[in-house]
Amino acid sequence: MLNSKEESMKDKGILIVLSGPSGAGKGTICDALRKRMPNLVYSVSMTTRAPRVGEQEGVNYFFRSKEEFEKLIQEDAFIEYAKVYDNYYGTPKAHVMNLLNAGKSVILEIDIQGAMQVKESFEDGVFIYIVPPSLEVLTHRLRDRGTDADDVINKRLSLACSELALAHKYDYIVVNDKLEEAIEKVASILRAETCKISRNKEKIHYIYQKYLEQGE
Amino acid sequence: MLNSKEESMKDKGILIVLSGPSGAGKGTICDALRKRMPNLVYSVSMTTRAPRVGEQEGVNYFFRSKEEFEKLIQEDAFIEYAKVYDNYYGTPKAHVMNLLNAGKSVILEIDIQGAMQVKESFEDGVFIYIVPPSLEVLTHRLRDRGTDADDVINKRLSLACSELALAHKYDYIVVNDKLEEAIEKVASILRAETCKISRNKEKIHYIYQKYLEQGE
Repeated sequence: MLNSKEESMKDKGILIVLSGPSGAGKGTICDALRKRMPNLVYSVSMTTRAPRVGEQEGVNYFFRSKEEFEKLIQEDAFIEYAKVYDNYYGTPKAHVMNLLNAGKSVILEIDIQGAMQVKESFEDGVFIYIVPPSLEVLTHRLRDRGTDADDVINKRLSLACSELALAHKYDYIVVNDKLEEAIEKVASILRAETCKISRNKEKIHYIYQKYLEQGE
Repeated sequence: MLNSKEESMKDKGILIVLSGPSGAGKGTICDALRKRMPNLVYSVSMTTRAPRVGEQEGVNYFFRSKEEFEKLIQEDAFIEYAKVYDNYYGTPKAHVMNLLNAGKSVILEIDIQGAMQVKESFEDGVFIYIVPPSLEVLTHRLRDRGTDADDVINKRLSLACSELALAHKYDYIVVNDKLEEAIEKVASILRAETCKISRNKEKIHYIYQKYLEQGE
């Protein structure tokens, strides 16, 4: 029914930012979404840390030297970046823009500081905060994972608490009580966002013009 | 997992306004949604026209005299109303408020004039414009229905055209090309809206308090 021009307008990519405390289930939700929505991709981050065995340039990360990374910071080439211990990690602007322009929706799984950086340059991004139903559940999840020591778990819990106070800076909150429902909610948010009037001005104008032409 | 206080916060009703030209498929979409979402109800309109055979007070309409209706207009008791030929039709504010407070989401299928009236008193309503993919498709649908004469169809087409220019006053646009996809899009919009931060401030505050208590 739609011609090629309409198709191209229809498939504009959306930048989705997912945040939430460790143990909220962001990773599981992201993986499930990517399986269901073939148009949804992860962005590839850039880092100054050394590649681990099996990691590929442009697949797992873009690997750069510290000097190159700092030059790119100066050139405002990141939509967000952070220094973790001695290494930089960042999301290259050009990479994300290319994906969005090609009609791909890009999902970023980043912390609240990164999310707020993204918001400065991508106002029309969709900011989703994933939260466990209670601190008790979060504690159980972190313990069950068995990857963190007790003091790390306690730090994560305290961070979760202080970050929740900033949830109002996001557009949506999804309480991950039942995983399947949480995945469906995030998928619904993405489908709903593609219907937003603000994302469809061109398309509405085009349909309107066609109405006028046919009405003559 | 959630206690009764959380449950009550969770189930706040949303007012959904669906508009679009005759033949866009609004009625079909509404019926399908109500079957899938047990928490979604139509509001019952008030009218001054006489009940038809089988129509029941409070089910099909609230039937009132012209005098009563005009008194209610004076009392600002409608979220929208219109006079069609000699009869009034309106959506009673108290009825909708009762449903929303009881945690029901209320769907109104009304024209653009009515929708703009609703927007004045229900800023956080969700305004969705349903549009057929083209004037050609709309023409076919109206002809296939076989209920309208040619001059009525032409009037409807011309109205569809002038109304589309006002679609930007809505929050979402859903192109009803494939019915099943359009239904899923509207359902997704409703699910997404329940996750909006602005609709969950109380809930976030409550979870935050619980985090703090548990963290002590």
